[in-house]
Amino acid sequence: MDWIQQPIAPPAQAYQKKAIKRQQQLTKPASSLGELEQLAVRLAAMQATETPCVDKVWISIFAADHGIADAGVSAFPQAVTAEMVKNFVHGGAAISVLAKQHHAQLEIIDVGVAGSLVDLNIIHQKVALGTANFLTQPAMTEQQLWRALQAGKDTITRALADNSQLFIAGEMGIANTSSATAIACHLLEMNAQQLTGAGTGLDTSGIEHKARIIQQALDKHKNIPSTPLSALQNFGGFEIAALTGAYLAAAQQQLPVLVDGFICSVAALIASQINSNIKPWLIFAHCSHEQGHKLILRALDANPLLNLNMRLGEASGAALAIPLLRSACALHNQMATFAQVSQVSQV
Amino acid sequence: MDWIQQPIAPPAQAYQKKAIKRQQQLTKPASSLGELEQLAVRLAAMQATETPCVDKVWISIFAADHGIADAGVSAFPQAVTAEMVKNFVHGGAAISVLAKQHHAQLEIIDVGVAGSLVDLNIIHQKVALGTANFLTQPAMTEQQLWRALQAGKDTITRALADNSQLFIAGEMGIANTSSATAIACHLLEMNAQQLTGAGTGLDTSGIEHKARIIQQALDKHKNIPSTPLSALQNFGGFEIAALTGAYLAAAQQQLPVLVDGFICSVAALIASQINSNIKPWLIFAHCSHEQGHKLILRALDANPLLNLNMRLGEASGAALAIPLLRSACALHNQMATFAQVSQVSQV
Repeated sequence: MDWIQQPIAPPAQAYQKKAIKRQQQLTKPASSLGELEQLAVRLAAMQATETPCVDKVWISIFAADHGIADAGVSAFPQAVTAEMVKNFVHGGAAISVLAKQHHAQLEIIDVGVAGSLVDLNIIHQKVALGTANFLTQPAMTEQQLWRALQAGKDTITRALADNSQLFIAGEMGIANTSSATAIACHLLEMNAQQLTGAGTGLDTSGIEHKARIIQQALDKHKNIPSTPLSALQNFGGFEIAALTGAYLAAAQQQLPVLVDGFICSVAALIASQINSNIKPWLIFAHCSHEQGHKLILRALDANPLLNLNMRLGEASGAALAIPLLRSACALHNQMATFAQVSQVSQV
Repeated sequence: MDWIQQPIAPPAQAYQKKAIKRQQQLTKPASSLGELEQLAVRLAAMQATETPCVDKVWISIFAADHGIADAGVSAFPQAVTAEMVKNFVHGGAAISVLAKQHHAQLEIIDVGVAGSLVDLNIIHQKVALGTANFLTQPAMTEQQLWRALQAGKDTITRALADNSQLFIAGEMGIANTSSATAIACHLLEMNAQQLTGAGTGLDTSGIEHKARIIQQALDKHKNIPSTPLSALQNFGGFEIAALTGAYLAAAQQQLPVLVDGFICSVAALIASQINSNIKPWLIFAHCSHEQGHKLILRALDANPLLNLNMRLGEASGAALAIPLLRSACALHNQMATFAQVSQVSQV
């Protein structure tokens, strides 16, 4: 059995029940903390504790390039992937700023950037110098797919060794909304026009071109098996495979996951088609501005926390939601109960 | 001229322009940080600075009781107002936990609780032992109205003396959704059924009863002047008047305001009808679960940051949004520009 088929246990029901009971005893009208109550209950069950805590957060950003960039599907040139990795390391990128603000551990993994990054203090697990162009051939070989999945699993080993209480993954890869869109179309049996969006900022004619390219690729690969791994192998990319592997490994090892935007949600969709037991381990941080994201979230039956019209990727939306999870935990753990404030009438 | 009529200056346009320009230079696709970009630009303009900052946050909770509670419009008895004030002070309430988490200064002001709180370390500006029952008479006298408005203004004096960079107000007062609903109905020319919600947790028949009571009061007071101050005086409460005074004073003194839920939004509506120039100074934190909140927000042309089905009041929704504003500032101030990362192609 491949490691990705290893079972995923459900969150601890006994702690879920205890958490629900505690929420009912806190000094507030029942359910008045809305989604925060469900967050606290879910985290208590995932962490199998009466006092859920996400003070220690691990953020892994997977970077890789995409052969499909040659087809002019992105507003930015491929070289930006490598330059942004440098920006992550030097602290100038959005995720660098947010990780610092929220005291989260940030690591960058090169799983397939089209250029040498050996001088950078990052994790080097380059599978290849970018995927092949999926317009003409499969994005990667089966062996490459498994190396990328494994790179994702490896991050969870490091996160757990650091006693992380919450896992966030992000991605950087010029043209990766095209890969993610093609995968989602294949898995959800939709056409390219339904799911294709502006990515980093295409105009209307750019989006039309991108949708045409993706549809052309879908048509070319229409006879591949309709399995999630086949979709990953044919449409890429290495970072999406790594995200998928990381999510599966996190859930297998009972580490709660906070999912970022469109690309990460597609990886969550792939992972949930590999093993649907992953779903209770995923908290969806935000609904992005990318057109297809709402549809992916609906397919996952997900109810994201934030909706701020963001479309940056690199885990920025998930990082923004960290304080909401921390607030949910703080309220759950620190608020007084009606019994403690015995004068307060319990109605 | 009354102090509430003092002019409100617009945020500094020169700094708004500089902030917009800087956002365009940061290492991210244009507009990809969504609402966070607008937040940073708005805060830069309000604070007249190139480096907006909301590290120092001031939270004032106004507590008062309502004569209308006698009509059975709340799921909780009136005594809960005083007990919750004690809970705020002792650190067991939601806002106590959130203020501590976000290192915000929290003060509680008794503007009209129906019971003695003299032993508590809070601000004592009790106008009366609760408002009169607006089903049979005006909730307060004109003199009481001005004392409550002034209590709001006084908090801004303290907030500014502490160099606060952001002002949040909250409220506690059993039955105050009834006051707020009646005011909003009067100002927006709606009937009670359109705006009446569950408050702290009424069931369907409870909501129907509450709507009937509010409609009865609206009918009784239908000949009062259709001014915001008249609505405040007739329907109460002291804490809503204090919120209104605080918002007006904050905007007059150029202190950005983060508005909490339904009650606070009604106070913002009153304030905006007194002086519409207040609008650029108000940031709306969240859309609550209370039925009428969406309609009030629409009337204010407001686009709230969060939507988490909360309905607790006591500034809890606004406190939750503090990290989003801090992230907006951190990203604006700390991200690298394309010029700094000169290798990154600017497309």
